[in-house]
Amino acid sequence: MKISASQIQSHNENLLPRHKQELDMLTNLLSDKGADAEAVVKRLTEFQVAIPSWALGAGGTRFGRFSIGGEPRNLQEKIEDVGLLHAMNRSGGAISLHIPWDIPSDAAATRQQAEELGIRFDAVNSNTFQDQKGHKHSYKFGSLSHTKEEVRKQAVDHNLEVIEYGKMLGSKAITIWLADGSNFPGQQNLRKALERTYDSLRNIYAELPEDWKMLIEYKPFEPNFYSMVIPDWGTSFLLASKLGDRAKTLVDLGHHLPNTNIEQIVATLMTEGKLGGFHFNDSKFADDDLTTGSIKPYQLFLIFCELAEGIGRAGDDDFSKIDWMIDASHNVKDPLEDLLQSVEAIKVAYAKALLVDRAALEAAREENDVVLAQEIIQDAYATDVRPLLRESRFRRGGSIDPIGLYRKLNVRKTLISERGTAGTATGL
Amino acid sequence: MKISASQIQSHNENLLPRHKQELDMLTNLLSDKGADAEAVVKRLTEFQVAIPSWALGAGGTRFGRFSIGGEPRNLQEKIEDVGLLHAMNRSGGAISLHIPWDIPSDAAATRQQAEELGIRFDAVNSNTFQDQKGHKHSYKFGSLSHTKEEVRKQAVDHNLEVIEYGKMLGSKAITIWLADGSNFPGQQNLRKALERTYDSLRNIYAELPEDWKMLIEYKPFEPNFYSMVIPDWGTSFLLASKLGDRAKTLVDLGHHLPNTNIEQIVATLMTEGKLGGFHFNDSKFADDDLTTGSIKPYQLFLIFCELAEGIGRAGDDDFSKIDWMIDASHNVKDPLEDLLQSVEAIKVAYAKALLVDRAALEAAREENDVVLAQEIIQDAYATDVRPLLRESRFRRGGSIDPIGLYRKLNVRKTLISERGTAGTATGL
Amino acid sequence: MKISASQIQSHNENLLPRHKQELDMLTNLLSDKGADAEAVVKRLTEFQVAIPSWALGAGGTRFGRFSIGGEPRNLQEKIEDVGLLHAMNRSGGAISLHIPWDIPSDAAATRQQAEELGIRFDAVNSNTFQDQKGHKHSYKFGSLSHTKEEVRKQAVDHNLEVIEYGKMLGSKAITIWLADGSNFPGQQNLRKALERTYDSLRNIYAELPEDWKMLIEYKPFEPNFYSMVIPDWGTSFLLASKLGDRAKTLVDLGHHLPNTNIEQIVATLMTEGKLGGFHFNDSKFADDDLTTGSIKPYQLFLIFCELAEGIGRAGDDDFSKIDWMIDASHNVKDPLEDLLQSVEAIKVAYAKALLVDRAALEAAREENDVVLAQEIIQDAYATDVRPLLRESRFRRGGSIDPIGLYRKLNVRKTLISERGTAGTATGL
Amino acid sequence: MKISASQIQSHNENLLPRHKQELDMLTNLLSDKGADAEAVVKRLTEFQVAIPSWALGAGGTRFGRFSIGGEPRNLQEKIEDVGLLHAMNRSGGAISLHIPWDIPSDAAATRQQAEELGIRFDAVNSNTFQDQKGHKHSYKFGSLSHTKEEVRKQAVDHNLEVIEYGKMLGSKAITIWLADGSNFPGQQNLRKALERTYDSLRNIYAELPEDWKMLIEYKPFEPNFYSMVIPDWGTSFLLASKLGDRAKTLVDLGHHLPNTNIEQIVATLMTEGKLGGFHFNDSKFADDDLTTGSIKPYQLFLIFCELAEGIGRAGDDDFSKIDWMIDASHNVKDPLEDLLQSVEAIKVAYAKALLVDRAALEAAREENDVVLAQEIIQDAYATDVRPLLRESRFRRGGSIDPIGLYRKLNVRKTLISERGTAGTATGL
Repeated sequence: MKISASQIQSHNENLLPRHKQELDMLTNLLSDKGADAEAVVKRLTEFQVAIPSWALGAGGTRFGRFSIGGEPRNLQEKIEDVGLLHAMNRSGGAISLHIPWDIPSDAAATRQQAEELGIRFDAVNSNTFQDQKGHKHSYKFGSLSHTKEEVRKQAVDHNLEVIEYGKMLGSKAITIWLADGSNFPGQQNLRKALERTYDSLRNIYAELPEDWKMLIEYKPFEPNFYSMVIPDWGTSFLLASKLGDRAKTLVDLGHHLPNTNIEQIVATLMTEGKLGGFHFNDSKFADDDLTTGSIKPYQLFLIFCELAEGIGRAGDDDFSKIDWMIDASHNVKDPLEDLLQSVEAIKVAYAKALLVDRAALEAAREENDVVLAQEIIQDAYATDVRPLLRESRFRRGGSIDPIGLYRKLNVRKTLISERGTAGTATGL
Repeated sequence: MKISASQIQSHNENLLPRHKQELDMLTNLLSDKGADAEAVVKRLTEFQVAIPSWALGAGGTRFGRFSIGGEPRNLQEKIEDVGLLHAMNRSGGAISLHIPWDIPSDAAATRQQAEELGIRFDAVNSNTFQDQKGHKHSYKFGSLSHTKEEVRKQAVDHNLEVIEYGKMLGSKAITIWLADGSNFPGQQNLRKALERTYDSLRNIYAELPEDWKMLIEYKPFEPNFYSMVIPDWGTSFLLASKLGDRAKTLVDLGHHLPNTNIEQIVATLMTEGKLGGFHFNDSKFADDDLTTGSIKPYQLFLIFCELAEGIGRAGDDDFSKIDWMIDASHNVKDPLEDLLQSVEAIKVAYAKALLVDRAALEAAREENDVVLAQEIIQDAYATDVRPLLRESRFRRGGSIDPIGLYRKLNVRKTLISERGTAGTATGL
Repeated sequence: MKISASQIQSHNENLLPRHKQELDMLTNLLSDKGADAEAVVKRLTEFQVAIPSWALGAGGTRFGRFSIGGEPRNLQEKIEDVGLLHAMNRSGGAISLHIPWDIPSDAAATRQQAEELGIRFDAVNSNTFQDQKGHKHSYKFGSLSHTKEEVRKQAVDHNLEVIEYGKMLGSKAITIWLADGSNFPGQQNLRKALERTYDSLRNIYAELPEDWKMLIEYKPFEPNFYSMVIPDWGTSFLLASKLGDRAKTLVDLGHHLPNTNIEQIVATLMTEGKLGGFHFNDSKFADDDLTTGSIKPYQLFLIFCELAEGIGRAGDDDFSKIDWMIDASHNVKDPLEDLLQSVEAIKVAYAKALLVDRAALEAAREENDVVLAQEIIQDAYATDVRPLLRESRFRRGGSIDPIGLYRKLNVRKTLISERGTAGTATGL
Repeated sequence: MKISASQIQSHNENLLPRHKQELDMLTNLLSDKGADAEAVVKRLTEFQVAIPSWALGAGGTRFGRFSIGGEPRNLQEKIEDVGLLHAMNRSGGAISLHIPWDIPSDAAATRQQAEELGIRFDAVNSNTFQDQKGHKHSYKFGSLSHTKEEVRKQAVDHNLEVIEYGKMLGSKAITIWLADGSNFPGQQNLRKALERTYDSLRNIYAELPEDWKMLIEYKPFEPNFYSMVIPDWGTSFLLASKLGDRAKTLVDLGHHLPNTNIEQIVATLMTEGKLGGFHFNDSKFADDDLTTGSIKPYQLFLIFCELAEGIGRAGDDDFSKIDWMIDASHNVKDPLEDLLQSVEAIKVAYAKALLVDRAALEAAREENDVVLAQEIIQDAYATDVRPLLRESRFRRGGSIDPIGLYRKLNVRKTLISERGTAGTATGL
């Protein structure tokens, strides 16, 4: 299924007068404060968030999974789905693949399909947390950190293979999420596990193309429940520092202990030139993988405030080198609607962060005027920036109201008729 | 497979001299302090922990599952496995079934099999967190709390059916773990969800046999990640209080927010006569379902201190009315070895709690002698009580060294040869 | 110091044209959606939050305290400070006193002073967590739960004395925050501590005037670090249920374990008719006592959504019976500016909650349209409601821009000149 | 007050026969398993834990403090108190001072007093979290990270002064606990705060004597409640790595977010050669500063398992370079009894860790025999090692039963008669 330009245009028509009115009102309001609505719209228009191939079907928990129907059955249909999103919101112009779930049988055809939809290939993801058919060795007790050299080698080789697939498609980064760890005190020699992991990563890094990045995730627990080999940003940073300039830390918002100040981690990583990218999602308890912005929208805004600070300092160049990806699980929502909401929330946070009066803020900070500093950032946060998002979509030919359009066009129903109800996305 | 008395006896023979020596030493040591080793052994001998039918195979996470092989393929094999455990440690003389995974096709035969192995049927468990084939309505959006009456009715009827199966087997309790809740703010009318749940529970309670208990679990999150309808002991208590005397709260050690003082909850529930039973396991982060005693053995001891206090006050009678069950997931260990370790840890905690000099402790408490109170309970905790556990097993014909025996007899290898490597336990 | 009506009016004059323009724009915007700006303004105008007498000076931690200067030195100056706030924001028309820090030497004069400033006396607070000069018994090891009857009696008598002071001033509630608990496993008989506490509360409740409420706080830790006698809402609810209809639970936003779903607790307490009041503040880690709305504004909104749901159901009457109080500590901000920010954040959350399209929300919930339900509540949350707050202040003669006015008038400087730099508020 | 050798000897006499018997029994038991009791006793005898000068009086919370009486009033009396502890347990042969609370007026005399008591001076501690009389600049908004250069310089100079005092007394390390941070989002430029901190630390490091260490603490919150400049081990490690070889990370057990795997941090720091020292204490919720081993004794054991692994690998040399210090607050216990309990718990954990059969453990780990690995470490943990601790004290002329002796000698009563009840320790 595809959504045509005329379908979008037709749906926009009714909404346009009111949108223009609201945009004008907001533009004037901001202008009175010395803020530039147009500049924000321009940045929003450029901003693209990669959609993970594994998040286009219904997700689940260890207790079960409820299908939604119409889920993509192969890589082609996954790209098709990202195409639907991108047609509507013009912000999902990238897809992040997962090997071996998304091995392209015909890389050229896959590239062409994506190109026609305006989609590029963001970081490729390796998988050493599940056993695949045909594997000689099991990852039950780890992969890159495994006690046995042959298992580590198999895992390294898999990562190298993933890079090869990425090269075929034009990716420029590999994301390594290492599920290795231990479930019980005593199970693992923690030092050796770390040393073995470093050694394995070194072998992968040695084969990393010059224009690629290696993104190293961290996570405190799950699927291991006592220790994870890379549990926190400090360990990811330690490894990335030893590996070299192209190794960076990837921040998944759900991979932190309770109460962690994530925005400070972002600021520290930017200061050290080690912020590689994001996996956006939201969570209340653990790695809940909920819709971005559904639980802690203010935290998301604060993260973007740190990012905006980084732009101000280092220029757009740094900002553009960060990989923006969603990583979520859709257990009770239609995955496509869920992703529309997530992208919207990310752009809302970004727009608000751009509205912060940075000069005034820095002045207040230098004088330790805590009340004023809060007033300044909360003034930006309180602003209803949705007209700017609508405009950024509209200008690129997207929908003023993506979820409204999606429902009006009965997209899910069409997908079910095309793909059936039993179809489950490969992967989680 | 069965383990014979002579196999156990033969394995015990070598260990016996040393065991007797250690037991004598400890008995004397305790006697010098005025403690009665024999009384502790006696209590340990009587103490039985129910094994959950769903924890006899390898568990997994949402990211995958690694089979162990030889896993039971049906109810008969599950009972057989519990029989193996009970033969070795003489403390697993009960099984807790899960419907629909364990529906007995021939209840009489099932009872007879269990009886021959010395096993009784503890609480039966209903399941409204997964859809079953043939279900008319999905539990995707809840069961007992569902917005639609017909879904609630289906869930109520399922619970009534579970009670019927329990009656056939001689169970005296139903455990209701309600996975209902919501993933997003706004999704659910929290008040109505609670009211509907109460209403459904009332319908089940109305059919509860006079000599049965209804055990109501609580859990703060997973599989729902914003709200659970029964998130904490307070809500379970509230519902149980309204329902009546036979409704009680079940404490699963893994179902608490970080840093919760679980032993205080146990004390409060006992004070109010509402402590119904336990699901034992251990955890570091969330509902990790690890081997009991593998992460926080001191907390387990403190819980048993509260239970021992309750015995001292209310007499054995109250204690005997509590349902003791394990609820764990075995992701990287042999499930049977894991269960042997869990039962051992529970009995260690119980034995140590029994050794606390309660008279001295109460005296120190009344005088707020905090240092002395800590010395008293830590004196009991520091004691190496393993000889008492060995003796309690030995006296009942069990093994002095269950894991050693299990390995010497190559039990897992035998089970694999009997059941195959592909066998996966029904259930999680 | 007082702020005169003409000072406020003069400061408002410049701001008025722009305010009116923004208000009109928002009113139209809301009207197009079927929402009634005027109704929200009306509710905001009626809404009053009590200021705690102990939060008018600089707060501190166990590591130290940094004075701000000009802090009130006695009850009269505290009321004066609340008068300043109320003159500016017209929402702080109540003060919550703390005995023995605020014993009125001349109750009639105190009432008159308050009346002239438009301030009434909200719940009075007892203090049994510190020893006072002249006390016969120390609260080092507890008060209402103490092992010794004479200490419990002293604590009960103190609470009765607090009620007497409250009667003199026109209060209608007593807030009991019980700091009792234990620092170490073993220290306390948890059951007896609970039973003694109930017994003491019963003695206080017996003397509670018919038109009063007893508000029972709960807190998981601090100042005790192993157990608190009333650690959670469940225990407060249990005690309040036994005591009677006038005993209610008080929710302090900072008194929860990590990740607690506070809004669900609010919903449950409302369902059971046991929600007595709030202590508003914000926190990231523990009982941080930060400015309300500075850390988790979305959570605050969700709490007010539950409250708004309660209004819709039970009518305004229930809502008006809830005590709204701030309880915060101002370690690095000017306390008065901090309180202005807190009250603003509370009203923002309230206004947004009132804007939720409840009929549409309930319809979406009944159909389990999770995406739509989130869209509906986030549409309200995204709205910039500040014009409504400005209007509600303006109509009652308050300031359109309280912090701006406060700074323009150099209030703190004046207070310092009147009261000196060394002045520290009595209390924390 | 001093405790004489003859007082100790006399108290030991009655206890000796039984102690010898228990020691023999344990020695035999361990010998049967191939473990060497004598070697453990020898290590315990050598092991010394520094007592912090600020933990010899009653501690408190922001809500109040209850004096114990007899608290040391000056540096001389603090050393005297450590002398009492050391005389009894022979494990407290070091004191850690806090400047400006403990400025020695006569360094030579102070050294002589300590020497006579067998006490050396461990790390000195700077204080930039409180304002001192005579300070030109306030630390209200930070010290080493402050926005103003003059404040940072004052804080740097203070640290250099602390080093000077340390040199006079023979210390070989300075501990820097930086309380700097922010209470509110927006307050601080997080990047600049980190950069300024690094710059300040560099200025201190530049003056650090060649044979000294700089120990950098980390802490997630308190006294700041939104961000701390050095919130986690990663940031401390980052700074220490940049500073140089003599800069190390100090692990305070209470300075972690909920559920943190502290032992893994210890292992990682040891792997990287950056583990500088410990502040021992225990906690359930936050930085509770409770008696070490009173809440999570198993975690303490696991930390020592990692340390023991480090010894096995790097030799005793590394182990001896780690600074072992207690940092606790005694709110309801007699501080000296509390410290006796803490040191005992630390040595229990150490002794048990030494008993782990490391060869067998490593073999099990290499084969991923998770059950066996747990059995091995829990076998050591289950052992009642108290006879080994008693022997280690006894051999060095200490008490077999320190708390018993302390109470028998009425030490607190004597201290009160010498120093009065009103005496409060300088400091917290």
